[in-house]
Amino acid sequence: MSGRVRIIGMGPGPACWLTPEAAQALTEATDVVGYAPYVARHKVLAHQRLHPSDNRVEAERARLALRLAASGHDVALVSGGDPGVFAMAAALLEAFEALPLHERAVEISILPGVTAVLAAAARLGAPLGGDFCVMSLSDNLKPWKVIKDRLEATINGDFVLALYNPASKARPHQIFDAFAILRAGRAPQTPVAFARAIGRDDESILRCCLADADPGHADMSTLVLIGSSQSRWVARPHGEPLLLTPRAVQVRS
Amino acid sequence: MSGRVRIIGMGPGPACWLTPEAAQALTEATDVVGYAPYVARHKVLAHQRLHPSDNRVEAERARLALRLAASGHDVALVSGGDPGVFAMAAALLEAFEALPLHERAVEISILPGVTAVLAAAARLGAPLGGDFCVMSLSDNLKPWKVIKDRLEATINGDFVLALYNPASKARPHQIFDAFAILRAGRAPQTPVAFARAIGRDDESILRCCLADADPGHADMSTLVLIGSSQSRWVARPHGEPLLLTPRAVQVRS
Repeated sequence: MSGRVRIIGMGPGPACWLTPEAAQALTEATDVVGYAPYVARHKVLAHQRLHPSDNRVEAERARLALRLAASGHDVALVSGGDPGVFAMAAALLEAFEALPLHERAVEISILPGVTAVLAAAARLGAPLGGDFCVMSLSDNLKPWKVIKDRLEATINGDFVLALYNPASKARPHQIFDAFAILRAGRAPQTPVAFARAIGRDDESILRCCLADADPGHADMSTLVLIGSSQSRWVARPHGEPLLLTPRAVQVRS
Repeated sequence: MSGRVRIIGMGPGPACWLTPEAAQALTEATDVVGYAPYVARHKVLAHQRLHPSDNRVEAERARLALRLAASGHDVALVSGGDPGVFAMAAALLEAFEALPLHERAVEISILPGVTAVLAAAARLGAPLGGDFCVMSLSDNLKPWKVIKDRLEATINGDFVLALYNPASKARPHQIFDAFAILRAGRAPQTPVAFARAIGRDDESILRCCLADADPGHADMSTLVLIGSSQSRWVARPHGEPLLLTPRAVQVRS
């Protein structure tokens, strides 16, 4: 008997953002595999085994999920946010691709979720009303030159830009280098937001502009959002301003 | 008394992709405002008034939502997918911004949802394992020159590309023009997928490569996904191949 792997997007954190599909898969699974903090969000049921693991062992975790499924288990491979966005879906398929063709029989499905940029955008207003790019700033798996070229492409295309994995203890400097590139190409008053731990108890947002932004505010729990030339703050008499990228593009002549 | 507007992401269609937060807001609302097919997804409750409207009257719909809220109603402004991605959040904030500052007192919140590119990616495999761009191909509100420049930027940055609103009865040609630009800059074997009505009963996916893709397959319900230089199909002995953009970028020397 062959089992299956379902790669589950748990959303940014709170249960109110977990889809019913994901919730049901989590109750059905015989095995819950994933990065320990995501596994810890799940209340284990009597028939289930948990397989928490450390960060940065995605390949090993993916192989474990495939092995369990191949021996008949119903595996929930959990991921924060959406599993497709710089998360476990790619890691699982990389491990799957490494198998000989005849061993690629396990059923694989991906259950989408609310990814960090959508949650951050929702809190900010409507920054994604215009075309946007989503990048991971980690250079663990791609050369910095690729990241630099892509940042420049987002400037040339005047895209709204969302940065995942902007900084970590091991990589504190990339976000400073990224801001240096962005400042060379975008207007000083371009809106910037550091959206941290959105949906969690310690959620916070820092609103600023490109000229004033301190990249040191970013950590692994932060989504950094940089507006396009069209993005602007909408003031309110009470409360923080809302960030808007209008649907219409006004081209300066 | 001042009411509120909650802009609700209903996801791509099925109830299994509607977040609990969105479901609860829909039951609490006194008024449900939105494009008729989205309003029709909601089972009206005894205390509720529905305000369905036609497509392409977003500004009018946004003003109605703000007027109802200003007179004390609890308004659910419904949107397909995620309300932030080329949807009602920007339209609502544009109408809000047009009010004098002292009239911007209504409480506004945005409830995120699963947007089309995440649903399509989940069905395909892991195409968003690398950096990606999300664009609306509609030139109703932005000049074609802007779209052309952005498509070229996505080529220069070697991004995975997701195209929303690729074609409609009134705009059948843009997707052909877009493919001509992409073909000039990307390899013929670049993976392409036309993901139509994902999550609905008539869901379908067409898998091909850039050289063979027929842009005529796209309509208003289609999400078109174009891979980067890194994207590839992963074959299986049974079932359709899976689309993978690995997390690691291999740079050709």
